[in-house]
Amino acid sequence: MKELFIVGIGPGSFDQMTMEAGNVLQECDLIIGYTVYVELVKPFFPDKEYLTTGMRQEKERCHIALQEAEKGKRTALICSGDAGVYGMAGILLELRVDYPEVDIHVIPGVTAALSGGALLGAPLGHDFAVISLSDLLTPWEKIEQRLKGAAIADFVICLYNPSSRQRKDYLQRACDILLKERSGQTVCGYVRNIGRQGESCQILSLSKLRDTQVDMFTTVFIGNSQTKQVMGKMVTPRGYERQVAVQCPQL
Amino acid sequence: MKELFIVGIGPGSFDQMTMEAGNVLQECDLIIGYTVYVELVKPFFPDKEYLTTGMRQEKERCHIALQEAEKGKRTALICSGDAGVYGMAGILLELRVDYPEVDIHVIPGVTAALSGGALLGAPLGHDFAVISLSDLLTPWEKIEQRLKGAAIADFVICLYNPSSRQRKDYLQRACDILLKERSGQTVCGYVRNIGRQGESCQILSLSKLRDTQVDMFTTVFIGNSQTKQVMGKMVTPRGYERQVAVQCPQL
Repeated sequence: MKELFIVGIGPGSFDQMTMEAGNVLQECDLIIGYTVYVELVKPFFPDKEYLTTGMRQEKERCHIALQEAEKGKRTALICSGDAGVYGMAGILLELRVDYPEVDIHVIPGVTAALSGGALLGAPLGHDFAVISLSDLLTPWEKIEQRLKGAAIADFVICLYNPSSRQRKDYLQRACDILLKERSGQTVCGYVRNIGRQGESCQILSLSKLRDTQVDMFTTVFIGNSQTKQVMGKMVTPRGYERQVAVQCPQL
Repeated sequence: MKELFIVGIGPGSFDQMTMEAGNVLQECDLIIGYTVYVELVKPFFPDKEYLTTGMRQEKERCHIALQEAEKGKRTALICSGDAGVYGMAGILLELRVDYPEVDIHVIPGVTAALSGGALLGAPLGHDFAVISLSDLLTPWEKIEQRLKGAAIADFVICLYNPSSRQRKDYLQRACDILLKERSGQTVCGYVRNIGRQGESCQILSLSKLRDTQVDMFTTVFIGNSQTKQVMGKMVTPRGYERQVAVQCPQL
């Protein structure tokens, strides 16, 4: 059986990759990915063969990887964050049908919900939903339905792809939906350029978030009804009964 | 400023930790955690001082860590998976109020939704919700509300803590709620002992999942309306329009 690895390399800095991901890349001969991610790992594995393709050419990238693996080359396909969360693992597993000799190994990585959450504090301490605002492959009505469902059920919400050149007002539209169910004072946060140069984060209310312009390198967090700000950090308690306990002085 | 690190060590095998997490542990003098996780990292950092506390003593563990850090000891608190997802980062940030000199750094890790997802294939390829079925700190009515909201909004759902000795029928109750909104043929999966001895995974229908007994070391995945099984793997496509494209022979 021939093997092909699809590796999530984490948010952007080399050391946020898992050791397993590092080991897999070390043992491969060929590393394929979008230009930005290839440039990131290249300095650490200088002796490898590299292949890059552009931003939207994901299917092409998968086919090349499958073909090279089929020839017997030890190949890894890299993607940012996790390999499966809005990642290429799914496409690869679907395209694999035409390459039955290739066995695919998915190597997980730290997705932006986790790395961004860590920078803000602990926003994902209780049940959460991850929603992409990109309507490239998903009808906006479906995205709205997800936002409404998550808002009604009091999930902490993490938004991927909150904005782009073509979708400047999408975050505002999402906030307007959420504001029908949640207080404008709900604690929110956003993180830019996680693990990269210019990394920054901000905690603010849902009302303020509505009127904030973010870019495509931003991940947004909307707290649930219990989320609070503690010494400049965004914290969602793990439970509901704890709320009472926290107010006791012996804590 | 004194520093305290809270480190997510991933699902269970050492190499699924990030390099950043490994570096932080290497630079600490004292590592504190639940017995099982301390035993996991000990062989890799044999020269450290270790402190373990029992399963439910999380606040005590946080206080000890804060006190040791306050004394100036380089201290890390470890937890499984991610430090923030149902993890101790939130409690620690709340308790920190009484230790204003201690600065807390949250080091993210691969949570079970990601590591388990990778074993099953790519179940989290589109919007998803993570829900814990533990009613230790959350009223069951709240959990039901989350399940309903996630089901209606067609999220892929990842269930943490699906069962325990006291809650043997909780997964069944959850499935009954989901079955009101979703087909019994919905593609589901579960993973046991991720990254540890006895690791195993299973793909099955929602109807079959309903009648399956899982244990507390299991993470459960319920597909959305688009999730499918492809050559033994669970795959959720990234979009809705792609569904049409996938049927074309040129793919």
